[in-house]
Amino acid sequence: MASIARSSLRMHSVVRMPTVRTITTTPQRCAAAAKPFFADEPTAPKLATAIPGPKNQAATAELDKVFDVRSLNMLTDYSRSIGNYIADLDGNVLLDVYAQIASIPIGYNNPHLTKVAQSPEMITALINRPALGNFPSADWAHILNTGVLKAAPKGLNQVFTAMAGSDANETAYKAAFMYYRQLQRGGPEKEFTEEELQSTMTNQSPGSPQLSILSFKSAFHGRLFGSLSTTRSKPIHKLDIPAFDWPQAPFPSLKYPLEEHAQENAQEEQRCLQETERLIKEWHNPVAAVVVEPIQSEGGDNHASPAFFHGLREITKRNNVLFIVDEVQTGVGATGKFWAHDHWNLETPPDMVTFSKKAQTAGYYYGNPALRPNKPYRQFNTWMGDPARALIFRGIIEEIERLSLVENTAKTGDYLYAGLERLAQKYPGHLQNLRGKGQGTFIAWDTPKRDEFLVKAKGVGVNIGGSGVSAVRLRPMLIFQEHHADILLESIEKIIKQQL
Amino acid sequence: MASIARSSLRMHSVVRMPTVRTITTTPQRCAAAAKPFFADEPTAPKLATAIPGPKNQAATAELDKVFDVRSLNMLTDYSRSIGNYIADLDGNVLLDVYAQIASIPIGYNNPHLTKVAQSPEMITALINRPALGNFPSADWAHILNTGVLKAAPKGLNQVFTAMAGSDANETAYKAAFMYYRQLQRGGPEKEFTEEELQSTMTNQSPGSPQLSILSFKSAFHGRLFGSLSTTRSKPIHKLDIPAFDWPQAPFPSLKYPLEEHAQENAQEEQRCLQETERLIKEWHNPVAAVVVEPIQSEGGDNHASPAFFHGLREITKRNNVLFIVDEVQTGVGATGKFWAHDHWNLETPPDMVTFSKKAQTAGYYYGNPALRPNKPYRQFNTWMGDPARALIFRGIIEEIERLSLVENTAKTGDYLYAGLERLAQKYPGHLQNLRGKGQGTFIAWDTPKRDEFLVKAKGVGVNIGGSGVSAVRLRPMLIFQEHHADILLESIEKIIKQQL
Repeated sequence: MASIARSSLRMHSVVRMPTVRTITTTPQRCAAAAKPFFADEPTAPKLATAIPGPKNQAATAELDKVFDVRSLNMLTDYSRSIGNYIADLDGNVLLDVYAQIASIPIGYNNPHLTKVAQSPEMITALINRPALGNFPSADWAHILNTGVLKAAPKGLNQVFTAMAGSDANETAYKAAFMYYRQLQRGGPEKEFTEEELQSTMTNQSPGSPQLSILSFKSAFHGRLFGSLSTTRSKPIHKLDIPAFDWPQAPFPSLKYPLEEHAQENAQEEQRCLQETERLIKEWHNPVAAVVVEPIQSEGGDNHASPAFFHGLREITKRNNVLFIVDEVQTGVGATGKFWAHDHWNLETPPDMVTFSKKAQTAGYYYGNPALRPNKPYRQFNTWMGDPARALIFRGIIEEIERLSLVENTAKTGDYLYAGLERLAQKYPGHLQNLRGKGQGTFIAWDTPKRDEFLVKAKGVGVNIGGSGVSAVRLRPMLIFQEHHADILLESIEKIIKQQL
Repeated sequence: MASIARSSLRMHSVVRMPTVRTITTTPQRCAAAAKPFFADEPTAPKLATAIPGPKNQAATAELDKVFDVRSLNMLTDYSRSIGNYIADLDGNVLLDVYAQIASIPIGYNNPHLTKVAQSPEMITALINRPALGNFPSADWAHILNTGVLKAAPKGLNQVFTAMAGSDANETAYKAAFMYYRQLQRGGPEKEFTEEELQSTMTNQSPGSPQLSILSFKSAFHGRLFGSLSTTRSKPIHKLDIPAFDWPQAPFPSLKYPLEEHAQENAQEEQRCLQETERLIKEWHNPVAAVVVEPIQSEGGDNHASPAFFHGLREITKRNNVLFIVDEVQTGVGATGKFWAHDHWNLETPPDMVTFSKKAQTAGYYYGNPALRPNKPYRQFNTWMGDPARALIFRGIIEEIERLSLVENTAKTGDYLYAGLERLAQKYPGHLQNLRGKGQGTFIAWDTPKRDEFLVKAKGVGVNIGGSGVSAVRLRPMLIFQEHHADILLESIEKIIKQQL
């Protein structure tokens, strides 16, 4: 098939598709016929026009007048999107394995979430938005206990709520700095000195100390000033923005297939751990916390073994720095466990775990009561999150439990991974470094002409994203089933054949 | 009346109120009997127990197990709050002139917002949350044009949407830094150097340049790392958190009554302007932008004259630095204009205006197309705001227009200010430096025992907040009318009499 889809970067020169097509699927597909979660989902993608079609182009031009559209991928008709399928204005309906940058958990127009959205609790949360730190609603504890905290990682029973991944990470960093200085002072009852009180008002030490957060090469933790100082994924995220002088440690660069490189991968992880500990001991701005993603996502889907993370937990403990696990992209089921760090079986839990995306709200979990700052109003802002979004997260958790969606994702992930392994054997040059085995549907591989691959995907009816410079990243929703995996595998093979 | 209310700081020792009381109001009050905006609002506050009452105490103890409650003011029963009145769990109903830290614009349980919350658009926005930069909904331009942008300040026709005040300011700062470096490079078509691309990955100059944002003494712009570096209100906001080495200029310290100190206040403003320009010219980390609140709010309700802001606009223009006006607290009608900077009648509009709070969503407005960074994905994040909250802002704007609420606030503000002037004459020691004349209901004064004043306010049926160290800050909603002002004035006099 000719390459007729167009990426957003080329949206002004469109070749029309000849006719409306429903992508046909080969009948001999072998998926067990599990009951679909969405009874009225399409059975296959549908292509009506080139993408972007004429209606999408016109609407994009209109939006461009008031809103930067250069990063636009596809204007979306959410009213006609359903389950795993995303629709545009021109009648195209794509299988969506990108899911709003990994943030839609249980399908477009999920009926249970519709009920949550129509509930009296939601309406009051929307129209009476509280300043949560001052005037929480009477049922805020109940909303937390039956929602956000019901999903809390093992060992962490408290939460500071936030708005999105960036500020979730930054408030966790702030908690880490306050904790670090409290240890230095000798306890929560120690008062600030006059010098601290004065120097902080001019942003100077000791009141505003030159401490740091250690992050890893290729990490992504957000784009505000503190979080961006720990983000090391791509220059375009960081250029021209002042940053703190904080250290970055190397993240393991593993070789695939893992079973063929066990020894050198273990050595590589040891090297990274040693360098991490050296930086903690020697960096000129003392390290208050280490932050790490269980799987580096935006930075290219880079994995490390549980042994590496056990090592990190040990290093942080013996050096008295906090261990923050950023589960913004990995959390809420996508790896086949509710939290990706559940795969590690740590003896001591992380000190803080941040979340956002599939939670549709954000914040950080913690367990140690000493992580509550020693005085009120030190960790505070007007809204401190949004109860409306906390109610949505509760509805998501309910659906995940009712339909066993974490287990579904583990099972579908294994099925999908096996299919991709077959494709990798057939087209080794096009499917390199396949990774994510046993990690649910959190799967990626490298391919030489990656950007072209993503553009061509739309032409065969699939919406896929990339990560890093050469990775195709799969981020299906938790309702992705084996029959969807079949369509995806077939589509990938079609694209590869176009690229041969 | 004895002081029987208790602040959140003393919430564990409660003295019971003897009986349920409705606060009676003197019949000779003189307010014009304007039609109330909320027909079924109470006619007066109602006190049923000491505050906090037994139910609130029990619920607070429950919440404390999972959520830091040390900054808690009052657990709220939003289902029984209405219009200008806020209810707790024990049957107390207070006139609320704090309004969720100045963020509720058109009353609790506003019927029009209820309709917005029940609309099909809202439901899809809640359950199909888009990654706005990649997959905006087909009607996103329409939602912006009929909502956020309908309220855009004069001269600014574009918006970058955000989640809350802090990230609204930080993304504005990022836009300023990118713009500054673009000017230095010689235009948007100039490519980044290899040295920039490499150095930014280790947070070093020139890729991560040591530029700065100039803010003012006592300013408050948020609590994330970049915004906190411009916040200069109180040490408790800043202690232990690393900060950028950015300059602060003095903010005018005006003397009241203004008409008696015209000349020395003008000199004070000149002094501050001169020092601002000196810092812009001489600060070791070059200044990319100046950020200022039209009225410093959290920092103590500090005002300056339109002449001062004209001066700032001139200084920023002639030194090629951007002028960012932070309208997070002053915006959306509270000063009797839709934007507080409308009072200044600037010839050249601000380069960016940030908003949040009463908008119930957030972002920054801009007009100059060069403030769109020269490449996509430089200013980006997953959600880039929340369409659900943008729909609420649209509903708020509709109500403001339908009921002429900005005009109402200007008129009620004048009435309230006149009443406060009378009280200031009667109790000069208790009502000092009354300020906010002609600024709608955005009114404050200093009082010696301020914290006690705020506690006692609950005991007479009013919920009031403070700012700075000694100011009582009034932040009624836009539906605050003269009959509410009468109750407030009478309550203030009651408190003062208790404090005599």
